[in-house]
Amino acid sequence: MEFDTIAAISTPMGEGAIAIVRLSGDQSIEIADKLFRGVGGKRIIEAASHTIHYGHIIDPKTNEVAEEVMVSVMKGPKTFTKEDVVEINCHGGIVSVNRVLQLVLNHGARLAEPGEFTKRAFLNGRIDLSQAEAVMDLIRAKTDRAMNVALGQMEGRLSKLIKRLRQEILEILAHIEVNIDYPEYDDVEEMTHKMLLEKAQYVREEIQKLLQTSQQGKILREGLSTVIIGRPNVGKSSLLNSLVHENKAIVTDIPGTTRDVIEEYVNVRGVPLRLLDTAGIRETEDIVERIGVERSRQVLKEADLILLVLNYSDELTPEDENLFKTVEGMDVIVIVNKTDLPQKIDMEKVKELAKDHKVVTTSLLEDRGVDELEEAIASMFFEGSIEAGDMTYVSNSRHIALLHQALNSIEEAIQQVEMGTPIDIVQIDLTKTWELLGEIIGDSVHESLIDQLFSQFCLGK
Amino acid sequence: MEFDTIAAISTPMGEGAIAIVRLSGDQSIEIADKLFRGVGGKRIIEAASHTIHYGHIIDPKTNEVAEEVMVSVMKGPKTFTKEDVVEINCHGGIVSVNRVLQLVLNHGARLAEPGEFTKRAFLNGRIDLSQAEAVMDLIRAKTDRAMNVALGQMEGRLSKLIKRLRQEILEILAHIEVNIDYPEYDDVEEMTHKMLLEKAQYVREEIQKLLQTSQQGKILREGLSTVIIGRPNVGKSSLLNSLVHENKAIVTDIPGTTRDVIEEYVNVRGVPLRLLDTAGIRETEDIVERIGVERSRQVLKEADLILLVLNYSDELTPEDENLFKTVEGMDVIVIVNKTDLPQKIDMEKVKELAKDHKVVTTSLLEDRGVDELEEAIASMFFEGSIEAGDMTYVSNSRHIALLHQALNSIEEAIQQVEMGTPIDIVQIDLTKTWELLGEIIGDSVHESLIDQLFSQFCLGK
Repeated sequence: MEFDTIAAISTPMGEGAIAIVRLSGDQSIEIADKLFRGVGGKRIIEAASHTIHYGHIIDPKTNEVAEEVMVSVMKGPKTFTKEDVVEINCHGGIVSVNRVLQLVLNHGARLAEPGEFTKRAFLNGRIDLSQAEAVMDLIRAKTDRAMNVALGQMEGRLSKLIKRLRQEILEILAHIEVNIDYPEYDDVEEMTHKMLLEKAQYVREEIQKLLQTSQQGKILREGLSTVIIGRPNVGKSSLLNSLVHENKAIVTDIPGTTRDVIEEYVNVRGVPLRLLDTAGIRETEDIVERIGVERSRQVLKEADLILLVLNYSDELTPEDENLFKTVEGMDVIVIVNKTDLPQKIDMEKVKELAKDHKVVTTSLLEDRGVDELEEAIASMFFEGSIEAGDMTYVSNSRHIALLHQALNSIEEAIQQVEMGTPIDIVQIDLTKTWELLGEIIGDSVHESLIDQLFSQFCLGK
Repeated sequence: MEFDTIAAISTPMGEGAIAIVRLSGDQSIEIADKLFRGVGGKRIIEAASHTIHYGHIIDPKTNEVAEEVMVSVMKGPKTFTKEDVVEINCHGGIVSVNRVLQLVLNHGARLAEPGEFTKRAFLNGRIDLSQAEAVMDLIRAKTDRAMNVALGQMEGRLSKLIKRLRQEILEILAHIEVNIDYPEYDDVEEMTHKMLLEKAQYVREEIQKLLQTSQQGKILREGLSTVIIGRPNVGKSSLLNSLVHENKAIVTDIPGTTRDVIEEYVNVRGVPLRLLDTAGIRETEDIVERIGVERSRQVLKEADLILLVLNYSDELTPEDENLFKTVEGMDVIVIVNKTDLPQKIDMEKVKELAKDHKVVTTSLLEDRGVDELEEAIASMFFEGSIEAGDMTYVSNSRHIALLHQALNSIEEAIQQVEMGTPIDIVQIDLTKTWELLGEIIGDSVHESLIDQLFSQFCLGK
């Protein structure tokens, strides 16, 4: 395909040693050539592919030096987008990189939209949709495991699985099609209800298996949103600090999120915990006081994990009991803190209130019980199953939604078969399943379904 | 010189499309080769200089893929450090780039200290000290003009000037030396007091000229720290918003500064304004209330520019008059705001209180007077003189301090000459001047100074 030439700053905004302005498209090399003055008159337009050139970016209007740069020239199709790509490495200042970008835009490039480079990689056929999505997951990965999931998906692991399932469905469909269109071919095996049922059930099982990975996949990808609650002075702030300091905090502030609730990521045994309202806890020791009752309830409701902190050296209060009621039906770990002080709490009562929830005793002051807590968090969500680095996790909400829809429609098909509905009616649900799975990898135009059907079954026509 | 191999992340921390792990040193290529799996078995160790290679970084221990990368190979001496340099371009995630850095460090590289790449460029003789310092200025530049100053310095403009001055001094010294050591050579012109005086006066003039650029240079480099003061409800917050919105805010939060006083940069006609305590103004409308009386006085004292806001539709209060007393002796622009409302203020009285300070009337509500205010700010500090893009500004505090010292010692020398002190005594002061100027370009500096200088750099540069 042919597109215009796009450009954008490809490194994070901020002060660093290097910042990159990236160009992609037919004009990339020509535009860079207009702005580049190499040592000894070396020109970008004459450069071999995959080579690097030292020189200056100048403003052709004034002939003034705008920046000292290294320019990388990569000719398509062996590039990220399959188009000609030029990367201009600048000194990593905000003014410097913006100045270079501006010159590039003034000389024929268009400012790229978010994700447009990856979109081109997809549209130009280098990667499919799920791989394109994985590129972004890779960048946003908060832990090693999340990165491995994304890396696997980017290398096409999920795509392969989806393609295999679609192939299965396609084969059933092809059989049905042949039976309908060419009833006179008796060398084509008649598709019996029994056989169709078996195949459809196999597809259903595989979709179910994939969906089973989705909870863990989603947590790996997005982090486990976690809220710490408890009365004042039970040690919420100490718990927060302990989690943040023992485990490297990954990101302290997520751009684009509202500032009402401040987030912090910590990595607890490979599980990314997104700690909500860390500022609130630090400043006021009270999430409710900070963000208001209504908003707090909302935050609790959206949390994946509640850490409910009690005071070991104090009796249970009605307020404590209220907290248990508030978090009913949620995933909770109860932390009884301050075991370094004399016991006043009734542990039997705590266990009764906690019901099925795990109860951990800690002395955050003396750094005791933290390991146990972390173990509880990790095992709660990843019961021994996460180690396999080569497992395919579904982590993307769009994929999960499509898989659920695909599951529904394959179940519908199975039901129809069991009810003895004519096979050519069942075909509709099967086709829908095939299309839904196709949407995951970005391939699901109706036209291609027909093309593929007949190209696979070379009937000699 | 020979050093060990260093590595660091050279792009700003954060999520972006590309992050770079940079290596420099003899082992760079070998280390990258150990970790790289190119398509078709291509190896880094066999790569030509200044070429780019697509492949994967693998963990040699597990043989697992750690990241998909582009590797740039640049062999010394035609590199940033004059050493072998390898840049590994990763997907721009925090986990991803850290994983690659970790592998590099595990296979023979050492984590670079801040500024160590630039330090090597200096130690290996590619650039002098003032050029190295300009690299950092370039990254931190807040406006186009500041960047041009840094760029000029990086290209060696200041170095050339300093070298020329040192050459002048060296010639005087050589004459003196020859006269002392070889009095029998009568073809060597006897250094007369008169001639020495002329030469020394020339050097003094040149140093003075350079120092004259320093106030503007410093403002361009560091920004004009600006405080907005005024009674509640006179429009401080509107003024702030007007300055920020009309002019692109450059950086909203400077890492490493204390959170007490929050800064915001705006670019007013090429003058970088560092607006202090913007949060204070937005939240409490009162810098004193926010940061306390003592700290506020300190902030005012350190400010380069005070914007004193009065209410056009209100009579002058004792509080207003007090503000004028507080800012006595400082650079102040008086803003009489709210001209959209009926006048109550006594403008004659305002002008009397303002003395020599410029008075501007505005209606921030109706967006009137802002141009005039910006003009006043710009002309106050850059009376028509800043346009010259090719002017050499001295902007670095270290350089300014050294120039002042050099000026003192050349004046001392001139005085000695005028007093008729024997020429070989004057020699001491001249030598000192020569050395002080040398420190600017890093000739004759102590190692500890070098360490300290580069430690102020950002990581990976």
